Amino acid sequence: MILDGKEIALRLQNEIRTNVEELKKRLVSPALAVIQVGEEKASESYAKNIRKEGEALGIYVEHHKLSVEISEEDLLYNIRNLNARKDIHGILVELPLPAHINKAKVVEAIAPEKDVDGFHPINFGKLFEGTTPFPPATAQAIITAIKSVVTIEGKFAVIVGRSNIVGKPTAVLLLQENATITIAHSRTRNLQDLTKMADILVVSVGKPKLIGRDFVKPGAVVIDAGINKIDGKLVGDVDFDSVKDEASYITPVPGGIGVLTTLMLFRNTVKAATLQNRIV
Amino acid sequence: MILDGKEIALRLQNEIRTNVEELKKRLVSPALAVIQVGEEKASESYAKNIRKEGEALGIYVEHHKLSVEISEEDLLYNIRNLNARKDIHGILVELPLPAHINKAKVVEAIAPEKDVDGFHPINFGKLFEGTTPFPPATAQAIITAIKSVVTIEGKFAVIVGRSNIVGKPTAVLLLQENATITIAHSRTRNLQDLTKMADILVVSVGKPKLIGRDFVKPGAVVIDAGINKIDGKLVGDVDFDSVKDEASYITPVPGGIGVLTTLMLFRNTVKAATLQNRIV
Repeated sequence: MILDGKEIALRLQNEIRTNVEELKKRLVSPALAVIQVGEEKASESYAKNIRKEGEALGIYVEHHKLSVEISEEDLLYNIRNLNARKDIHGILVELPLPAHINKAKVVEAIAPEKDVDGFHPINFGKLFEGTTPFPPATAQAIITAIKSVVTIEGKFAVIVGRSNIVGKPTAVLLLQENATITIAHSRTRNLQDLTKMADILVVSVGKPKLIGRDFVKPGAVVIDAGINKIDGKLVGDVDFDSVKDEASYITPVPGGIGVLTTLMLFRNTVKAATLQNRIV
Repeated sequence: MILDGKEIALRLQNEIRTNVEELKKRLVSPALAVIQVGEEKASESYAKNIRKEGEALGIYVEHHKLSVEISEEDLLYNIRNLNARKDIHGILVELPLPAHINKAKVVEAIAPEKDVDGFHPINFGKLFEGTTPFPPATAQAIITAIKSVVTIEGKFAVIVGRSNIVGKPTAVLLLQENATITIAHSRTRNLQDLTKMADILVVSVGKPKLIGRDFVKPGAVVIDAGINKIDGKLVGDVDFDSVKDEASYITPVPGGIGVLTTLMLFRNTVKAATLQNRIV
């Protein structure tokens, strides 16, 4: 069966809209600042997309478009201004940043309570401790998708890919849900033997069609978090057509995890607004 | 074969002593502050032990013994004083703390650059990012023990136990060494099937003799990080006598990982002194 991101998205949008309305009744209007440095097309369209999605949910999105030549110091100054503003609850800095800017410094400059991306070291540390208020968006999207079709507790989950953005956060969230977890990667021997054991298989490596039918246990839940462009077409890391009859559920690309990721950013923004205004 | 902690310890002590001498030549005398709250016997003897081991390595250990009735505010004040002192490079707060003191607040009050324990959220976050200067002591001890007998890259490592103190940090350090990792725990089904696949098996759950011969693949490296007291005797989580002929290497309890852990604390202290004085 296809695990349709759009269906889950509808439910999530309703949940978020309800929470936004609750906040507005208490005179809190949740707001997210998006900082874009430079004019890259992908960053530009991502920022526009966020603004559009935000508006549909009742969340104000303030788009800060800064010159590609901005100094690190000026960028940090902008972030500190946003940290200080009571009307802004979340801050997202679009990546990649120009080479003359130290990414780690920028991420650490964001106030942890406004770090809706969840990658400030304080929040990243709390993620692995099990106490972050802002689990990273893609990992949260993956968990939400899995939970919509299966109980995680006790399952054997294999995560292929160990990035800080997707693989590791997803693994630790699955662990918190009481899955047994395995992290596999480019140096893993006999990858196929492991993936064939997985009740839940999450793939995020950026290799089109890495996972075919022979890699999947019959009845497994397969989550494809890969994003690759081939001849201008978006494809995942899983060979969808070959795997779809083997898996009990499989997320398509596009239309799967990607659809949910931005929503998780808004969920984190609503949470940030709630926490900053001490609403329980 | 027995993987003898004492043998590795000798090598480590030499390495640390050499680094301490290097620092002293540059007029930096590495120093660790140990804060003990209350009079618990275990904390008392641990602090004394650290002081003795530190002295043997040329590292100054300042033992702060505070009343069990100290207020949280006063404890934080003590920590901030130590944060400000240039002659103190590492700060260790002994756990557990009395119930009226918020442990998270205390850990977060330690300056990250003096957090030789590695559990400040900033450092814990950097641990999972792969950039912490202070990997937690027990995990570092486990990695050092394994590396002394086997190459980690490409191995299948199973970690039984998912604590923030041992299981998770060990898993991520093994992952950084390019092992494929599995984290198993109390909710894991068919634990034995997994542990029997492990080239490297790390156990840290606090269940005496949980792991017997039937749980171990012939030739595996078995690391027992369990510490249990039975009839006043220290035992691990592995049934040593039954497993020792199955494993290629196995750490005993006592005399295995425990012997190395405090040394790792000193290694972190030396590193802290080095970084704080910008010595490369």
